[in-house]
Amino acid sequence: MSSVIPQPLAELVDQLGNLPGVGPRSAERYAQHLLKAGPGTSAKLQQAIASIHSKISYCPKTFALMETGQKLSPLYSDPRRDKQVVAVVADAFDILALENTNGYKGTYHVLGGLLSPIDGMGPEKLRVKELVSRVDKDKVKEIILAISASVEGESTALLISQQLGRRKLKITRLARGLPVGVDIEYADQLTLARALAERQAV
Amino acid sequence: MSSVIPQPLAELVDQLGNLPGVGPRSAERYAQHLLKAGPGTSAKLQQAIASIHSKISYCPKTFALMETGQKLSPLYSDPRRDKQVVAVVADAFDILALENTNGYKGTYHVLGGLLSPIDGMGPEKLRVKELVSRVDKDKVKEIILAISASVEGESTALLISQQLGRRKLKITRLARGLPVGVDIEYADQLTLARALAERQAV
Repeated sequence: MSSVIPQPLAELVDQLGNLPGVGPRSAERYAQHLLKAGPGTSAKLQQAIASIHSKISYCPKTFALMETGQKLSPLYSDPRRDKQVVAVVADAFDILALENTNGYKGTYHVLGGLLSPIDGMGPEKLRVKELVSRVDKDKVKEIILAISASVEGESTALLISQQLGRRKLKITRLARGLPVGVDIEYADQLTLARALAERQAV
Repeated sequence: MSSVIPQPLAELVDQLGNLPGVGPRSAERYAQHLLKAGPGTSAKLQQAIASIHSKISYCPKTFALMETGQKLSPLYSDPRRDKQVVAVVADAFDILALENTNGYKGTYHVLGGLLSPIDGMGPEKLRVKELVSRVDKDKVKEIILAISASVEGESTALLISQQLGRRKLKITRLARGLPVGVDIEYADQLTLARALAERQAV
């Protein structure tokens, strides 16, 4: 390869291949596109990449992403948002998925991961303390655990409810069951077992 | 979206979405990866993007890509390459595909496109003159037309053989037929018709 692909191009293909799910063929196509599109297009992309690190920070209240310079994320500061309802998510990007449902008007709290001592994610690495102090300050009425239905998710849910102690508030979690539009025959065993156990009155 | 995704992140997702075959979901994943990987990883990618424009140029003989500062592409200057055999390709990136076969030891000539007057690609935009003068200078014995089997490819092939006039040299083109490993029932009609018409003795 090295004699055929000029070194700078090979380096770019390598770098693009580090993006998640990008194989060597796709990386080659992207590099080819950038080379053909010219320095203008590339400069825009370079600038956009640089900007995310310099112009994005984390909201000190919710730990959601926000533009540097904002005091709080608009997801918290917006007066239409119900501060007494908090959806707890593992990752800042999970907020996007929930917002895209257009069905949620509360606020968020980003934990920064899920409990997984084997991977070095102990309770001290999650922002549970910050959540508890928010519960007290904002007089939170409901916490929605919007975290995955994995072993890590379950232990994180347990940790949070322990840390909240005897505070009077509702703790809920996302419903588990059949994904919308999926045939029973294609549902996996665990999901189906859960859907059966948590069956609801029609 | 705009209130949920901070503006710099939305901008990066937009820019990444311009890459060929990258949809909004993939662009989001790439942006997320870059944000999480930190400024070091991003800086490397930025640099690699910048380098392809500053450090890559075109070989004045073959018009293949080469590193800026080289006099000629190693694909031409390498003494093991047979300069009397020239594979003519539409695009500099087509060379890669041919090199990957490990079965070609001649040199290349990049036309810069295929004849397509409807898209503004007239004969004057292709590097045919340069090819003809190479044929004379290097005493080329064979030209292999490694261009696609489309209408544009056919007219380009015709143009080249006209321009070469009555020079004594072999003009060949890549064989057309069934792709290796493809069942007859899955081959498209045109390919199959061609394979039948150009059938070979066993």
